[in-house]
Order: sequence, then structure tokens, then C-alpha cells
Amino acid sequence: MPVFERIAILGVGLIGASIARAAREYGAANTIALYDADPAVRQRARELGLGEVFDDAVSAVTKAGLVVLAVPVGAMGAAAEACAPGLENGAVVTDVGSVKGAVVSAVATKISTHAYFIPGHPIAGTEHSGPDAGFAALFQNRWHILTPLVDGREEYPLFVDKLEQFWRALGANVERMEPDRHDVVLAVISHLPHLIAFNIVAMAEDLESVTESEVVKYSASGFRDFTRIAASDPTMWRDVFLNNRDAVLEVLGRFSEDLAALQRAIRWGEGDTLYDLFDRARRMRREVIEAGQDTPAPNWGREN
Amino acid sequence: MPVFERIAILGVGLIGASIARAAREYGAANTIALYDADPAVRQRARELGLGEVFDDAVSAVTKAGLVVLAVPVGAMGAAAEACAPGLENGAVVTDVGSVKGAVVSAVATKISTHAYFIPGHPIAGTEHSGPDAGFAALFQNRWHILTPLVDGREEYPLFVDKLEQFWRALGANVERMEPDRHDVVLAVISHLPHLIAFNIVAMAEDLESVTESEVVKYSASGFRDFTRIAASDPTMWRDVFLNNRDAVLEVLGRFSEDLAALQRAIRWGEGDTLYDLFDRARRMRREVIEAGQDTPAPNWGREN
Repeated sequence: MPVFERIAILGVGLIGASIARAAREYGAANTIALYDADPAVRQRARELGLGEVFDDAVSAVTKAGLVVLAVPVGAMGAAAEACAPGLENGAVVTDVGSVKGAVVSAVATKISTHAYFIPGHPIAGTEHSGPDAGFAALFQNRWHILTPLVDGREEYPLFVDKLEQFWRALGANVERMEPDRHDVVLAVISHLPHLIAFNIVAMAEDLESVTESEVVKYSASGFRDFTRIAASDPTMWRDVFLNNRDAVLEVLGRFSEDLAALQRAIRWGEGDTLYDLFDRARRMRREVIEAGQDTPAPNWGREN
Repeated sequence: MPVFERIAILGVGLIGASIARAAREYGAANTIALYDADPAVRQRARELGLGEVFDDAVSAVTKAGLVVLAVPVGAMGAAAEACAPGLENGAVVTDVGSVKGAVVSAVATKISTHAYFIPGHPIAGTEHSGPDAGFAALFQNRWHILTPLVDGREEYPLFVDKLEQFWRALGANVERMEPDRHDVVLAVISHLPHLIAFNIVAMAEDLESVTESEVVKYSASGFRDFTRIAASDPTMWRDVFLNNRDAVLEVLGRFSEDLAALQRAIRWGEGDTLYDLFDRARRMRREVIEAGQDTPAPNWGREN
């Protein structure tokens, strides 16, 4: 039995398309309605047969028990506003934004009082974007974080449970967290790594000392790994940094401080300091593998 | 026909063991002699059947046409010194160190004048270490950089050609470069990325604001990629940073400068600056894929 009879997904990128495919594949919803602000994306969603594609947000959400906002963080408020007049009585509205505090501020006031806004964030993705990048297995064994609001209505917790059930049906493990806590944790383990990757890849591109073709040619020595993560959607990431500014700046300060200490250890030839730090970093890898969060295959199973 | 009748490999880690397996698999040598300073590693090399394992460096290199120094950069001088008395007349000596300038300084004077030292560096590896990590296909379609010395002997270039042939037999593409140029290029595309990865992983481990189990649990959001690269051998990397100090500090200064600019753009909400930089980084990914230096499969073909 489906968790929701009818769901609506606003924004048909990697995540939106994957939810559509997963909901159908694993029977989490009977009918899937889709809307994207970009006509070309709507057209592509039709060609891919992702669900019933509508040309406006209000029609898309009509009669939907669950509405998923799957647009960049900076567009969440507008997406909520656009669909609000069509929201059913008792509809659950959720989102998939990588920042939660700013999304709560932007969306909560736009959602009619007869609907239930429960923010969320799937810890899943690839470096590809757009409707063609979606696939049903994206959320399998990945974590999905829900950050329920302080909402006095007694049925609110029941809808949180129902939304959790939906994500479990898609294969995810579900965890609950405060929105602010989410933003601090993600700043460390997701936003900062992406920022660093963007920075090093862009830097390498406009160095005078090394040509771009040298960078590309010998990239298997480490650099190529950073290019994958730096290939993620620029609009999505611009919005993440603009909307999780304080937490990102905080952890970036710490990163720079630690890097300066490492720089000093190199300058002064402090081998033991370097070794101890590298050894500590290596242990973290083992924990990630043991927790089933990455493959133990060398080089992620790439040929070489 | 093998390129060398007999080769000796000093140091049986990931790279040494892979050369042994590849030389046999692809017929690049008839006999493979091995030595490692660690008795436990020698024992393991015997169990794995990697070749004829000797208990001292001099015996290992006796009658070898090619001697490969496959030890950490900081141990290259000692390895060269240890085997020097056994070097055949006309033997080629090469290495696989990730730094070339410092290795040239440490090794060149230790090699007898009747041998030929031709430094080299395979742009290949995995995050695993030790003899068990070696596999024959490691060098397939990867680049191998040779940094020949200025050596007046007229037969020297012929030996460089022969060494190039050896690496091609192992499946590598071979490029030649000045040692100093190598060290600048690798500082950018390999040493800096590793340093950044070590720094971010070690930082995450001792943050007060986020628990280690949170970092591990949600690591699929970006962090896990950095743990792979940070799992590389700490001894090897300590030696790289101690021995390529100037080039690393130079590029690290540039990295920090660019990161400060990015930090400022975030603080002042300069969305266009962020977007342009992220978009530029994304284009670099496409070039890496087009050059065949990484797989186009999303997430490197990991399940999700």
C-alpha cells in the first residue's frame, strides 16, 4: 500500500527526478505529479515518463497528500508561495534543501495553516544534475534527516511519522534533528568539503605556473577526486553558501587555522606532527567504511 | 621478449608489489628479485609469491639490469646506499618517488658511476598500502613521468628509452619532464589536494561542535570522498611534504589567498562571484573526463 496516494514534486532536477522514480519503483505513491519552472525541464520530464507533468504549480499540488519542494535553497520561498493556493487540507509539505534554518524562515510563513510543513534533507546525490540524472536507487541505505518544526497541532507528529515512512519506503534511513544543529553538522561534512573542492579546482585552472592540460593529464594523482565534487550544480551550491553563511564561515575559520598550523609544520620540517595528523585522518576512513558509508574497494572500484 | 632479463625491486608496498605483479603479468621481466627492510613485509612477499625475496639489498640487486627504488621519499638515499655495492655494470636504477628534486639529490651521489640513475614517478595508486594492496593493472593507462638527469654519457639516452619501454610494457603512458617542473606540477595536483584532505579530515575529528559519529554517519554528503584520499600511507606523505617543501608552501599560499577571497564573497553575499567560480570548476571536470582520466559514472559507479 502506498504511503501517499498522490504526491507532487516541484523542481525536477537530480533529486526531484530520483524521488519520482523511487516513489514509483518502490510503491511509495500511486500518482506522481510534477512541476518545474523551466519549460524545457517539464518537456524532458514528460519524455522521461517521470509522472504527470503540469504547467503550473497550483495544478500540480492539487489533491496531493505530499508536496516535495525540490528546488535550490534560494528558490524554496518562491516555490512554496507559488503552490500555496492549491494545497489540500491536511497536505504535508516537505523540502530537500541542504540548509534548513533559512528554508524554514523562507517557507513556513508561506504555507497555509491547513497544511503541515516538515523540512527534510536527503544525504544523497551525485555530481550530475537535471532530470536525466535521476535514478530510483539514489536514497537506498542513505540517511534522510527530518527537522520537524515546533508545531502545536496534535496531529503534526503523526504527519512526521508518515513522512518518515515515505522516505523509508524509498530505501532511506531516517534521523531527526533540530534545524540549527543540521546546519552546523552539514557545514562541516558537506558545505566545507564542497567549498574546498571548488576552490582548489578553480585555483588550478588559473595558475600561471602549471598549464591546464598538465592538470588534466596528471589528475589521477589526487586532483581528479576534487573535480567530481566540484562538478555539482553551481546554482544549488551558490544558494547553500548564501543561506548557511554563519555556520560555513565559522567552520571555514577553523579549517584555515588548522591549515596554517600544518603549513608551519611543513615549513619547520616537523615530521612527527605531520605523521600523527595523517595517521589520525586515516583512522577516520576506517570508521566511514565500517559504518557502511563508503565502499572499501580501492579507488572506489574505478579501474585504476 | 622481456625488456629486462632480471629486475630488482627495493621496497614492497603498494607500488613495489604492483610493479612485481605487472612485470610478470605483462612479461616485462623474466626474473623479479625483491627486498624490503621490514622482515614481516619480506615474509608476506614470499607468501604472496611476488618473486625471489632476498634478506639483503645487495643480494637482491645482484645481476639485475633494472633496480627500482620503491620506498618512501625520505628513505631513497638509504636504499640507494644499501644496494650500491651490488649494482651490476650498466645497471639502470630508477625510483617511484612522488618528489623528484630531493630524490635526485639524495640518490645520485650514492649510485656507482658504472650504473645509470633515471628518476621516475608513476601517477597511479590507491588509498591502500602494503604488499597485499598491489595489483598488476595499477599502471594501465596511467601516466608515468621520467625525469632524466643531465648525464654526459652517450649511452644514457638509450637507457632512458629502455626504461620507457619497461613502463610501457606495464601499460603506462610515458612522459618526460625536468625534475623541478615535476615537483611544481605535482605540488598543485597531488600534494596540495592530499594536504587539504588530511587537514579537513583531522579537523572534523577533533571539532567540539560536531561529534565523530555524526561526521561518519552523514559522510556521504561530501566528506567521505576526502577520507579516501586521507587514508593514504602517512609515512609516504610525511616524506612528500618534508621533501617538496618550497613548491608545496608556494601553492598553499595561493590556495589560502583564493580561499580568503571566497570567504569574503560568502560573507558579503556575492552570489554571482560564487556562481562564476563554481561554474568554472565544473568545466574542469568535463576536461578530466574527456581526457580519460576519470570515469564519467556518477559517484564513480559506487552504488549510491
